[in-house]
Amino acid sequence: MPGRVTIEYCTQCNWLARAAWVAQELLTTFATDLTEVALVPGTGGVFRIGVDGDPVWDRKADGGFPEPSQLKRLVRDRVAPGRDLGHADRAQ
Amino acid sequence: MPGRVTIEYCTQCNWLARAAWVAQELLTTFATDLTEVALVPGTGGVFRIGVDGDPVWDRKADGGFPEPSQLKRLVRDRVAPGRDLGHADRAQ
Repeated sequence: MPGRVTIEYCTQCNWLARAAWVAQELLTTFATDLTEVALVPGTGGVFRIGVDGDPVWDRKADGGFPEPSQLKRLVRDRVAPGRDLGHADRAQ
Repeated sequence: MPGRVTIEYCTQCNWLARAAWVAQELLTTFATDLTEVALVPGTGGVFRIGVDGDPVWDRKADGGFPEPSQLKRLVRDRVAPGRDLGHADRAQ
């Protein structure tokens, strides 16, 4: 089913809290657009976010953690194209 | 892949925060036993937890929300049978 987000996070780096925070941000903004947000424990410094299997953010490739507004635009473009995100759109 | 937990929660009842808390409790205790914990938005008072498709808790059927120690025993029995949960086992 479309609308599945995965948040892979590094357990060695204690990034569960950050991953759960990001999940709540996405589920608050996209409560009716997402079917689920899965928290996926990993290792080795991973912090990677995917939408329906497509990577939208990778800490190593993108040089750090995403700001919620940045991430919401990336997710919006896949699950609710054209939808106005209010502040998150004007924060560019 | 075994070790997938789903937490279906009611968005109308604002139970996202509780669902995210339960997810973090499970991922802290079972970081190496679970492949993922998925937060699944729903409606109509749902608060239902499943392990690999099997229901382990349903708010309506079980008369309320699970205590973390209770829930951890149910999840342990499926993903890490025999594992000692320390306090969570003695809290029975």
